[in-house]
Amino acid sequence: MSPFRATPPITTDWEHFEFTVDDGVATVTLNRPDKLNALTFDSYADLRDLLAELPHRGDVRVLVITGQGRGFCSGGDVEEIIGELQKMESAELLEFTRMTGAVVKALRECPIPVIAAVNGVAAGAGSVIALASDFRLLASSAKFAFLFTKVGLAGADMGSAYLLPRLVGLGRATELLMLGDKIDAARAEAIGLASKVVPDDSLASEASALARRLADGPALAYSTTKVLLTRELDMDLGSSIELEAITQALLMTAKDHGEFYAAWTAGRSPQWTGR
Amino acid sequence: MSPFRATPPITTDWEHFEFTVDDGVATVTLNRPDKLNALTFDSYADLRDLLAELPHRGDVRVLVITGQGRGFCSGGDVEEIIGELQKMESAELLEFTRMTGAVVKALRECPIPVIAAVNGVAAGAGSVIALASDFRLLASSAKFAFLFTKVGLAGADMGSAYLLPRLVGLGRATELLMLGDKIDAARAEAIGLASKVVPDDSLASEASALARRLADGPALAYSTTKVLLTRELDMDLGSSIELEAITQALLMTAKDHGEFYAAWTAGRSPQWTGR
Amino acid sequence: MSPFRATPPITTDWEHFEFTVDDGVATVTLNRPDKLNALTFDSYADLRDLLAELPHRGDVRVLVITGQGRGFCSGGDVEEIIGELQKMESAELLEFTRMTGAVVKALRECPIPVIAAVNGVAAGAGSVIALASDFRLLASSAKFAFLFTKVGLAGADMGSAYLLPRLVGLGRATELLMLGDKIDAARAEAIGLASKVVPDDSLASEASALARRLADGPALAYSTTKVLLTRELDMDLGSSIELEAITQALLMTAKDHGEFYAAWTAGRSPQWTGR
Repeated sequence: MSPFRATPPITTDWEHFEFTVDDGVATVTLNRPDKLNALTFDSYADLRDLLAELPHRGDVRVLVITGQGRGFCSGGDVEEIIGELQKMESAELLEFTRMTGAVVKALRECPIPVIAAVNGVAAGAGSVIALASDFRLLASSAKFAFLFTKVGLAGADMGSAYLLPRLVGLGRATELLMLGDKIDAARAEAIGLASKVVPDDSLASEASALARRLADGPALAYSTTKVLLTRELDMDLGSSIELEAITQALLMTAKDHGEFYAAWTAGRSPQWTGR
Repeated sequence: MSPFRATPPITTDWEHFEFTVDDGVATVTLNRPDKLNALTFDSYADLRDLLAELPHRGDVRVLVITGQGRGFCSGGDVEEIIGELQKMESAELLEFTRMTGAVVKALRECPIPVIAAVNGVAAGAGSVIALASDFRLLASSAKFAFLFTKVGLAGADMGSAYLLPRLVGLGRATELLMLGDKIDAARAEAIGLASKVVPDDSLASEASALARRLADGPALAYSTTKVLLTRELDMDLGSSIELEAITQALLMTAKDHGEFYAAWTAGRSPQWTGR
Repeated sequence: MSPFRATPPITTDWEHFEFTVDDGVATVTLNRPDKLNALTFDSYADLRDLLAELPHRGDVRVLVITGQGRGFCSGGDVEEIIGELQKMESAELLEFTRMTGAVVKALRECPIPVIAAVNGVAAGAGSVIALASDFRLLASSAKFAFLFTKVGLAGADMGSAYLLPRLVGLGRATELLMLGDKIDAARAEAIGLASKVVPDDSLASEASALARRLADGPALAYSTTKVLLTRELDMDLGSSIELEAITQALLMTAKDHGEFYAAWTAGRSPQWTGR
């Protein structure tokens, strides 16, 4: 556990999805397969709080998010979320949209790499959760659909109008967010939305292999790479170069860089500690 | 008409291009086909002012820009513009370049989606007008040419050095703007500069179909999507997520989202009002 | 020579790479082919200072960077750099990382187009030097490898986490910088990291031809295009359009634009002076 924890205990049971940690690899499995893993108020709140807590556990170096059954995540449940929103006042609606945005902010700011193992349709909020992850491994039958306008809402939801143009360019992002049509896995890969497309029955093993590589490798190096990628989207050239200079000087004093040099000198493979 | 109009009347006749409005779809047709629809001082000024007025009309939900004949728009006319510029002083030149830039600023800030139906060559200012639109449907014989350096000017014109890297990446934008060479439709699609390439004789019907879809759909949702895409290019992650949360909370109180839920509950298609 | 030079003389001999100037085209050739042109403290410092001096010479309109032998640049030398860094204190490490970052800052801010003629592997710092150039011509056997994490350091080095997402998008940049795997030339071209891939034995002539085109063309137009592309990555829409308006008004008063019009009127090709 991190030495910098406050009073709240680490949560041992998350009620609204499956959560496991195995030798540095945390896995969130959305587990409402009959609803294509539609999100509820509770599962949004649990995702938000899990992401805040994850770096404090001390036993997690990479997070995998995936879904049970045919879907990855079909977004906010129409009955349990959209139906309820109809009854809410402005202040409550804003509390809800801030919560969903907080999930994406946490995904981007969490200093732990996140792999979305997209096993099926990623729609609405589900597509943005995948978008905000660092790696998107897609089963070949998976699809994205930023379908917000199809329910009469802005295509800009949970940061999608910030993130998507920075992955696929403004032109393609405009088309995907304004129209909300489905994008198949091959198209997602072609435009840089998918990191890799794999056969459906290889997805779990490919995601495991990537997670294992990240968990067993120089974790501090991976973590700082993610954090600086996130931050430098919002920084100018000169400040970014200064931030990288300071960060890299710090990492040059860390164990793993020394281990690389020692291993190289001895002609052996480095034994990363992630420190 | 918008209730928030000031004294100036809505302009009924635009002299320097054809302008029609048909059931929510406005169309600007550049109509100097013998000059490949080269722009003049007058047509720049009319475009600037039309774009400012368009949201005030109240009867327009999407704008289509296209050209008569073989060309979309060949940019500033060499005789009528470049020749005249040779005689101007610095202050007048700046007044001109600010006007051309104002056209692009208005295209990006206009809260109405814009479709460029690129029927032929889009060169110089013509290529930037297409670039600043939200959708670029290209006839398969259409071409782009950011040819500013070929007339001895900066490839950065009317915001092209801001917009193009945000569509196709800095490397490709550098090549296209610095060298000014032609890009054919297939290449434009491959790099994300064209939304879609269609056979020449299908362009008008494809543009109409897309315009109709946008005009008949949830127009407020489309409009806010465009506005946030424009703004969030210049915003950081946290502010973007907050802007999306507030915007989406507003749209959750609007008619179209309620209509979606009512339609879904009743098992029928939503009847969008765009409100 | 620029009229705005201070006391220091122009450097005539650069010791740590080959440097030539031929009719407007400067060429830096990294010349440690037995080490795949690995960089040393000295060659970093020379690159930094050359790039500051280059615009003051007055005889250079384009810079080509290439390598001798099989490699383009394999990055920091393991023995001469990483070995030495192991012995340094924090303040010295920061002085080093600031120097390497200063090379990239100078490449981006130098008002002269830079062509990286990537003749073989571009790894670590070598890949970032190519990334920070304006054009990347790749021999078909060339490869990129942002291999920083493989030595236990952050993938964010010398501005790579700022630049790479702005060329290839955040998703692909995350993969390339976090994992550090090799990218072959075809893949680099497909994602917009290579400007063009050419057969190995054509690289020198293709780089020469492009350099000649840039040196003989409207050099002020090319230079301002580069400078505005660099700056507008960090500017908002309105400011960018204003900067372009002011810049273009200036270029309209410059010789080359007048020469274009005179040539066009006379039905001849323009004779660019680059002024």
